[in-house]
Amino acid sequence: MAFDEQKKRDFKVVGTRPVRPDGIDKVTGRAMYGADLSAPGMLVARVLRSPHAHARIVRIDTSKAEKIPGVKAVVTSADLGRPADEALRDTQDNCLAHDKVLYDGHPVAAVAATSAQAAKAALAAIEVTYEKLPHVTDVDAAMKADAPVVLEGRAYEEVPEGWSQNVTNHCEFGHGDLEDGFAKADLIVERSFKTEATHQGYIEPHACLASVGPDGRGELWCCTQGQYMVRETCAGILEMDASQLKVTPSEIGGGFGGKTTVFIEPVALALSRKAGRPVKLVMTRDEVFRASGPTIQSSTDVKIGMTRDGRITAAEATLRYSGGCYPNSTCMMGAQAAFAPYDLEAVKTVGWNALTNRPKEISYRAPGAPTAIYAVESVIDEMCQELGLDPIDVRLQNAADKGTKSSYGVTFQDIGLKAALEAAKAHPHYSAPLGPNQGRGLSCGFWFNFGGNSSVTLSVNTDGTVSVTEGNPDIGGSRASISMIAAEELGIPYERVRTLVADTASIGHSDTTDGSRVTFMVGLATIRAAREATQKMCARAAKIWGIEPDAVEWVDGAAQPAGPNAGKFPPMSLAEIAATSLKTGGPIAGHCESTADGAGVSFGVHLCDIEVDPETGFTKVLRYTVFQDAGKAIHPDYVEGQMQGGAAQGIGWALNEEYIYGEDGRLQNAGFLDYRIPVASDLPPIDTVIVEVPNPGHPYGVRGVGETSIVPPLAALSNAVSRAARVRLRELPMSPPKILKAMMAKG
Amino acid sequence: MAFDEQKKRDFKVVGTRPVRPDGIDKVTGRAMYGADLSAPGMLVARVLRSPHAHARIVRIDTSKAEKIPGVKAVVTSADLGRPADEALRDTQDNCLAHDKVLYDGHPVAAVAATSAQAAKAALAAIEVTYEKLPHVTDVDAAMKADAPVVLEGRAYEEVPEGWSQNVTNHCEFGHGDLEDGFAKADLIVERSFKTEATHQGYIEPHACLASVGPDGRGELWCCTQGQYMVRETCAGILEMDASQLKVTPSEIGGGFGGKTTVFIEPVALALSRKAGRPVKLVMTRDEVFRASGPTIQSSTDVKIGMTRDGRITAAEATLRYSGGCYPNSTCMMGAQAAFAPYDLEAVKTVGWNALTNRPKEISYRAPGAPTAIYAVESVIDEMCQELGLDPIDVRLQNAADKGTKSSYGVTFQDIGLKAALEAAKAHPHYSAPLGPNQGRGLSCGFWFNFGGNSSVTLSVNTDGTVSVTEGNPDIGGSRASISMIAAEELGIPYERVRTLVADTASIGHSDTTDGSRVTFMVGLATIRAAREATQKMCARAAKIWGIEPDAVEWVDGAAQPAGPNAGKFPPMSLAEIAATSLKTGGPIAGHCESTADGAGVSFGVHLCDIEVDPETGFTKVLRYTVFQDAGKAIHPDYVEGQMQGGAAQGIGWALNEEYIYGEDGRLQNAGFLDYRIPVASDLPPIDTVIVEVPNPGHPYGVRGVGETSIVPPLAALSNAVSRAARVRLRELPMSPPKILKAMMAKG
Repeated sequence: MAFDEQKKRDFKVVGTRPVRPDGIDKVTGRAMYGADLSAPGMLVARVLRSPHAHARIVRIDTSKAEKIPGVKAVVTSADLGRPADEALRDTQDNCLAHDKVLYDGHPVAAVAATSAQAAKAALAAIEVTYEKLPHVTDVDAAMKADAPVVLEGRAYEEVPEGWSQNVTNHCEFGHGDLEDGFAKADLIVERSFKTEATHQGYIEPHACLASVGPDGRGELWCCTQGQYMVRETCAGILEMDASQLKVTPSEIGGGFGGKTTVFIEPVALALSRKAGRPVKLVMTRDEVFRASGPTIQSSTDVKIGMTRDGRITAAEATLRYSGGCYPNSTCMMGAQAAFAPYDLEAVKTVGWNALTNRPKEISYRAPGAPTAIYAVESVIDEMCQELGLDPIDVRLQNAADKGTKSSYGVTFQDIGLKAALEAAKAHPHYSAPLGPNQGRGLSCGFWFNFGGNSSVTLSVNTDGTVSVTEGNPDIGGSRASISMIAAEELGIPYERVRTLVADTASIGHSDTTDGSRVTFMVGLATIRAAREATQKMCARAAKIWGIEPDAVEWVDGAAQPAGPNAGKFPPMSLAEIAATSLKTGGPIAGHCESTADGAGVSFGVHLCDIEVDPETGFTKVLRYTVFQDAGKAIHPDYVEGQMQGGAAQGIGWALNEEYIYGEDGRLQNAGFLDYRIPVASDLPPIDTVIVEVPNPGHPYGVRGVGETSIVPPLAALSNAVSRAARVRLRELPMSPPKILKAMMAKG
Repeated sequence: MAFDEQKKRDFKVVGTRPVRPDGIDKVTGRAMYGADLSAPGMLVARVLRSPHAHARIVRIDTSKAEKIPGVKAVVTSADLGRPADEALRDTQDNCLAHDKVLYDGHPVAAVAATSAQAAKAALAAIEVTYEKLPHVTDVDAAMKADAPVVLEGRAYEEVPEGWSQNVTNHCEFGHGDLEDGFAKADLIVERSFKTEATHQGYIEPHACLASVGPDGRGELWCCTQGQYMVRETCAGILEMDASQLKVTPSEIGGGFGGKTTVFIEPVALALSRKAGRPVKLVMTRDEVFRASGPTIQSSTDVKIGMTRDGRITAAEATLRYSGGCYPNSTCMMGAQAAFAPYDLEAVKTVGWNALTNRPKEISYRAPGAPTAIYAVESVIDEMCQELGLDPIDVRLQNAADKGTKSSYGVTFQDIGLKAALEAAKAHPHYSAPLGPNQGRGLSCGFWFNFGGNSSVTLSVNTDGTVSVTEGNPDIGGSRASISMIAAEELGIPYERVRTLVADTASIGHSDTTDGSRVTFMVGLATIRAAREATQKMCARAAKIWGIEPDAVEWVDGAAQPAGPNAGKFPPMSLAEIAATSLKTGGPIAGHCESTADGAGVSFGVHLCDIEVDPETGFTKVLRYTVFQDAGKAIHPDYVEGQMQGGAAQGIGWALNEEYIYGEDGRLQNAGFLDYRIPVASDLPPIDTVIVEVPNPGHPYGVRGVGETSIVPPLAALSNAVSRAARVRLRELPMSPPKILKAMMAKG
């Protein structure tokens, strides 16, 4: 049904490129971000952080701090609850350390004062007695039997012999007979790879304004990807009813997955509760780097068998991830994604997580997938080089397609990998000549895309305009895409619709904005809500006309009599029905709360040309093209923006970004001067080609597009370097010293 | 159906008295009122007002004001649209005068500046050239043929001979043969009454914060009884789409009908649009008195015929109201209400409105009814005195009841007038002894109660708490009553529910909070939304149990298997269903948008003892008891509060409150020192007796309670004075000089 609908549909609004609704507010400074709200009597909060990578907290004495004039509250973990749920407790302990500090920058206490000066003085006056403990910050070191144990009692139930108690999570996926598969191979390559943790690098640090009244009810303004997640988490930590805490999401200055948890919100609420005044808490950039969520650090082994003509006969990967100081299951998504682009007869992936004295990992765009696919696509590329095969042809030959049983068990429906590969092959970029010291790399990418839960209300205003209310912060243009979908369904111009992201008290639960799910799922809910509204409008028209409601249909923004009544009355527009609605039965709205099934997986192919300076190892990205299946691009500008943004972030990850820990376990580059994300001058214009293979699980064919684009760059860049520098690196980032060193080693 | 349900129902939450949800915020100063929100870069606005009662605006020169440092915008009516709709145009002209100023204090221009000083200087620098015109401020004088015409071209189409063009509205109600009725009477009394305009006297002056972006989209924070009314009105005046203006209602420091229109909001928006910065505009108390809405000024004739034994044979009234400088239909509600308490064979009421050079009338609690019923109940009382009959017996004898065809045409269903009269008769107050110079007065009161349109969303949070979202500002405890109704329907404790009044973008249209409609109508919508939610929860339980949804019923806060499945599974509570909801189909919510029919009319009876000081004419209220039919009191504290508040305001109206205009047409008492509302020491404890005759139009029997209570005090006080001072006054307020004068005239 849905799929047929997509094919027949003649879209009027979907696929166009209207002006973004938040653009003017953002460029004029009118948009209100996390730090932009103030309240009368507001206090300033500051957080005291651990200077140690690992230490027991013997004693915290806040008495001197409390006596400093202007200091209204000091909190430690003793001021929070101790929730039964283990994951929630980890989140809490990450906000305020319980009995141990687990990483450099781990919060230990916080103060709220009438001035920043007083707050700073109070931090200095808090006396913390630490008992330093040995630390470990590397995933491979952490797994070794003699490694310092980061968190006691959290080891995976069946840790293999010779491994440490830091091993907390394990998973396995795959099918087929590996031994038989490798036996059929003409070439078997087995390699190990390592990647450093990177940070999402959002421009806006975490910020919030919290206010808890003497009756225990709270209000919280914060920048987040999920106001319901914030509400549930904070209510759990502060032992409040969720209904007693209202969370309003501010405009968000980038998230990329990094704002899918809380760092400061429970602390600000606890301070406000104690001080009886509103509290503003804003992280510094240093704090963001040291103590918000970077991505995982990884160590991966890949073994692939291939026939001479490029057919993969068996594939195996072991992923060792460290998600920092608390148990983490990102290795599962990595293990599922590793071989997803391929149709394989024998495949196996194993994932492990190990605790390290690093900040808790938080999702970063397609969490777990980029490093897994980097390893796989590097090995496949090496095999293509070895066998003299065309990298696209090999991938086309092995590509997953409709009906493929994926390496993680799901059987794919319509997917766009082959279409993307073919688009890449046909593109002028693929055949453009290269100069000396230049190389071209290619990689496939994959992301699951989530469905999840969302609530949407669509209200038809009496002047014929429409308000859509939803609960998912707009991190990638969803207010535009949702308004477009509503306009499309209702048959009215885009300009007549305004979509609002509401607070937690104004609309029902919505899962966090993540998993590239919002335009898909909230769009689906909007379609359903709009259809409920058009049905109601048809009923109103029927009432006015005095005919049966089912003899009216909604066509081109108007109710019109159908069946035996066709043509008996002129169509009645949405504006006409809206204008009389308060006299014909009341306000008109459509609603949808549901869990979406049918999210369509997404594939992309990236092509990258680079030049390596043989004297310095400096890498210049010359040309970059992204091919990606969007299912159906609602607002192509934003889809292209996602494709470009993911590529840019992936380039940074591949070439320069990394967390650098010293011997003392302290982070050495907690700032944008030393943690080097690409700036405009580092990047060429990134070209995009949107492929559209409709997702059968969505009436318009929409797939998520936000995450897939960060997956291929790591391998694409590495594969390009291997050709430009004639040496293959197996560790990220490929910073100039490393490239130079590799080239020199090869001679 | 509904009525049976009321009788059988054993309420658990409804009828109890939980702590009010806004109490702590209000007493600790945490509640945010209209003036409490600020924004970065905010400007301060001030309004220039007419010093004349009536004048043509020849020229406004703002050029000097615009050059004052810090002044960012100056607006006049030229900066607003000129909407086609006449009523909207009147509202606009009342916010910023178009070509004439029509009353003392009429806004002429407004400025926004970086400081109050600069704004004040700018007001002084605006040059307005007026051509003074003759004015009229009294309703009777305004109707005379030679009166100055306030607004040209707005006269009622058939103004009677000899009347002026200021007569704009007319209505007639009644039935039966008046001539025949009066012929049957043993006593006919015909009297004229006059009342001065009074002000609602809310503590919080009008205040707002407006922000319009360069893209034309606006946000408005303001204290109002109706955010949708504000949105629609401002959007109309500023020529915006409603969906492009988000209006958030602040906490409201009293409204009583006076915040059912806009005075400053379009001005602040226009200033913000022009200045490109947020603008805060707060009225002073002087401005509130001079230029927000007082009630009508009235002049009323009543003629009643009665048999010796107290049966009313005929009744007639002519009401002349002035609703200020724009056409006004409040006379219609007065004419409908005048004889509503009585079952009459022959009755006629005629209403007229005349324009005067006074501010535009805005609703004040039961608009039009108090002055009409004051006149009628005064005449009936006089007849009781004349015929030596008991005032309650006469009223009981003539009281409207179920089946009565009312004087305004409606046939009453179950009503509580007789029950209230009987409660008054049986009450110790009625038979308590009185001392010298003391008198006891009695009056009936009536109000229609509205239904109207409202939208409600009820969301079941995953932790088993419930959020109710509605669009009606809480002016009388509706957040408590709505939460109680939701708790009652869902079978959960009141404390688990929180009701939020949302902004215009977060939920669909709701009519303004007025007409005593909110607990009735929003309560009804909440019941419907809750039933939709319980139905969905039953379906979830059925899904979990693997049985048919219609084999599950909702009992005591839990889904339980019914019919053939009864007892097969243990009941599943709301909290249990909520906890798994995201895995069983998504978030759970119920919604209702509708127009309510079935609002039940409300009657009350007030008993009042006063003592008049024969030397000064000073009146002391000794004892006061209110008997009123609430249908069903959801939260009796609030119902009693409404009864007490209405009585207190009515006492002020009766005894001291009045607009005093000088010969020059300027208001002479624009402040609480000179406009004398009752303070605590002026009032005795006001006793209350809640009568409950269920309204058959509501599942719980609820009737509105907010307005009826201001209707009886005017006559109750006057009737008490007539006994205490042995002289009947027919003009309000009965201030000491007037009483003294009347007593001295009688000797």
